[in-house]
Amino acid sequence: MALVVQKYGGTSVGDPDRIRNVARRVVETVKQGHRVAVVVSAMSGETDRLVGLAHDLGGEVPEPRELDVILSTGEQVTIALLAMAIGRLGQPARSFTGAQMGMRTDTAHNRARIESVDTRILRETLERGHVAVLAGFQGTDDDGNITTLGRGGSDTSAVAVAAALGADVCEIYTDVEGVFTSDPRMVPTARKLERVSYDEMIEMASLGAKVLQIRSVRFAMRYGVKLHVRSSFTDTTGTWVVPEEQVMEQLVVSGVTYNRNEAKIRVRGVRDVPGIAARVFSPLAQEGVVVDMIIQNLSQDGATDLTFTVPRDAFKRALEVTRTTCGELGAADVDGDPNVAKVSIVGLGMKDHAGVATRMFQVLADEGINIQLISTSEIKVSVVIEEKYTELAVRALHDEFVDAGAGEPVAES
Amino acid sequence: MALVVQKYGGTSVGDPDRIRNVARRVVETVKQGHRVAVVVSAMSGETDRLVGLAHDLGGEVPEPRELDVILSTGEQVTIALLAMAIGRLGQPARSFTGAQMGMRTDTAHNRARIESVDTRILRETLERGHVAVLAGFQGTDDDGNITTLGRGGSDTSAVAVAAALGADVCEIYTDVEGVFTSDPRMVPTARKLERVSYDEMIEMASLGAKVLQIRSVRFAMRYGVKLHVRSSFTDTTGTWVVPEEQVMEQLVVSGVTYNRNEAKIRVRGVRDVPGIAARVFSPLAQEGVVVDMIIQNLSQDGATDLTFTVPRDAFKRALEVTRTTCGELGAADVDGDPNVAKVSIVGLGMKDHAGVATRMFQVLADEGINIQLISTSEIKVSVVIEEKYTELAVRALHDEFVDAGAGEPVAES
Repeated sequence: MALVVQKYGGTSVGDPDRIRNVARRVVETVKQGHRVAVVVSAMSGETDRLVGLAHDLGGEVPEPRELDVILSTGEQVTIALLAMAIGRLGQPARSFTGAQMGMRTDTAHNRARIESVDTRILRETLERGHVAVLAGFQGTDDDGNITTLGRGGSDTSAVAVAAALGADVCEIYTDVEGVFTSDPRMVPTARKLERVSYDEMIEMASLGAKVLQIRSVRFAMRYGVKLHVRSSFTDTTGTWVVPEEQVMEQLVVSGVTYNRNEAKIRVRGVRDVPGIAARVFSPLAQEGVVVDMIIQNLSQDGATDLTFTVPRDAFKRALEVTRTTCGELGAADVDGDPNVAKVSIVGLGMKDHAGVATRMFQVLADEGINIQLISTSEIKVSVVIEEKYTELAVRALHDEFVDAGAGEPVAES
Repeated sequence: MALVVQKYGGTSVGDPDRIRNVARRVVETVKQGHRVAVVVSAMSGETDRLVGLAHDLGGEVPEPRELDVILSTGEQVTIALLAMAIGRLGQPARSFTGAQMGMRTDTAHNRARIESVDTRILRETLERGHVAVLAGFQGTDDDGNITTLGRGGSDTSAVAVAAALGADVCEIYTDVEGVFTSDPRMVPTARKLERVSYDEMIEMASLGAKVLQIRSVRFAMRYGVKLHVRSSFTDTTGTWVVPEEQVMEQLVVSGVTYNRNEAKIRVRGVRDVPGIAARVFSPLAQEGVVVDMIIQNLSQDGATDLTFTVPRDAFKRALEVTRTTCGELGAADVDGDPNVAKVSIVGLGMKDHAGVATRMFQVLADEGINIQLISTSEIKVSVVIEEKYTELAVRALHDEFVDAGAGEPVAES
């Protein structure tokens, strides 16, 4: 008998039919002799509806504490519906809100961090042979205030529950069949991976893969929780996300990812003195603009060029803020390009193989694609290119590194 | 400085404009120097929507524990929206769910009874000068399970909070201006009452007046909570519901009420032996049919007639059940009439005045209205008549007892 934590996202519980489908899956798992705790999100669209209610009041940003009180009702409805649906199949089930299951967080409303899970009541429920149906995304702080973990937080809730219970596996159900070597809509030869390491999964998530929340993978890595990413609509095995030593073949490049939602801003001729980067980027942070890649060119005559990328929808705002700042700093010029994309290759094998970046640059050069920015880490290389070349670049890189590579490849986008 | 508990129903918080309106009222009360705790219901229509979600799963009656988990989200959304709206007017406010405010109930899901209110956190909130915004209708049992009090339970929540805090007044805001001597839509001369006693209010509520939940008035009477029923759309004083000794003038008849949603069933020639009533009514209770008036005629030749009323929408079911039972009991005949109404007069003064019932019967006789059933208590007389005479009867009785009576009359329907 195994202890299984299953997590179903908003699409998987989006209507009564789908909730009944999830109930059947849960009961099948119980019939296979396992104990099951299920973590669910709000029905798809529900969180947006609830945020809308708050915004309909008018004016400013909703008060964070009260927004969490509203948002947490989304999962509260789903847990009760799923517990009912499981009960109707003859399997006792019991729902628990974040407060009821003892999901303790810090007090950072709308983006709280999990501090502990009180497993007493969950263990009692599972030992009685009941299914525990748990609200993802939410918890309470030390004073009993309701908190939420931020969008996608349900993955993290599930991993936290799995870690606290010492579960044998945390199954993350989604609307795709697992983690792929690249986006199958873009790359016809993209293949589902059997296994991928935490590190690779984290890089892929941060580079645009949407299959798992980066936070939840970090959490799983820290506590050694084995993740199994699979589809709630089929019975096929998905992708296991596991410690590095359990990934059988370490390929040089295991995945090709892309992010089209990028824009580039360049500041030219700014004085190269200590503190200048802070002066440029503090106003952007205050405006809530998340800066991704930052490249600073070599200084010439005491002046330097600074280039960085931001999400495309923040481009206009970021450009204005940067122009104001750089006017004050006496920079020569600020310009930008809202039509760029980031394409990356990820693979554990890069640690041991030299020349991977060079091969990547050559592949792009052969396709006539100009590289605007480069950023590297131990297991990935990212480049920024003109957005219109995204598909060409991704396919060429997948051909070179994955299709031509030996054995089972490892990634998705 | 007074401590004021205000309760706003679903219509008063039905959309963003109305929530802002309630927020303004709350802040005005604070500006007058009072401490305010506000109890709110779910937005109108929301409870029905949530029940619908449970029913969409299909089949049977929803599991009561899980239904409460769903239903309680209705008020949880309202408290957060109202707390936000109050905050935007510059007045700090804080929302509390039933669990957070320590509203403890028994474990009877969907119709729980309040056992205690832990006032520590509410007092702290009020002492800091903050408004406490509380979810009506909900609580938790000793094991932390979410419970609800049943429809209209928010009135009872408000009274319980007022009792626990020792509030100076519990203001019940509704969409009418107070308690009237009769239904103003039916009786043009109906007047708003300044004061009415708990006993009269309880009789009126049980006889069809919808302005207050009978349970909440009983609760208020037991704990001596002064109720002020008023409109959330105007600033005029409403009706005070107070102990009997505070009602200045005790009129013979203070209100004329009616209930058109009645049906009558008659069992003829049933053996008049001990236990026969139980044999007739137990199967109805099992079917969930609420029997109202019961009249048993004098026995003749060892057989008796039994007549009773049920809500009109339960008529068909009740008739079938009764036919089956009475077949088994060997009754001569069972028939019924789905088109009857109950008309009642209520007044504290009846206690001291003889002949009130006779005067009532005479008024109806003068209008040519036949009385089918009669039921009396210390402070009310009810008659069942043909439904089509309802308006005629109510107006004639209002003329006789209220318009013609001295001073301020006391009732509504």
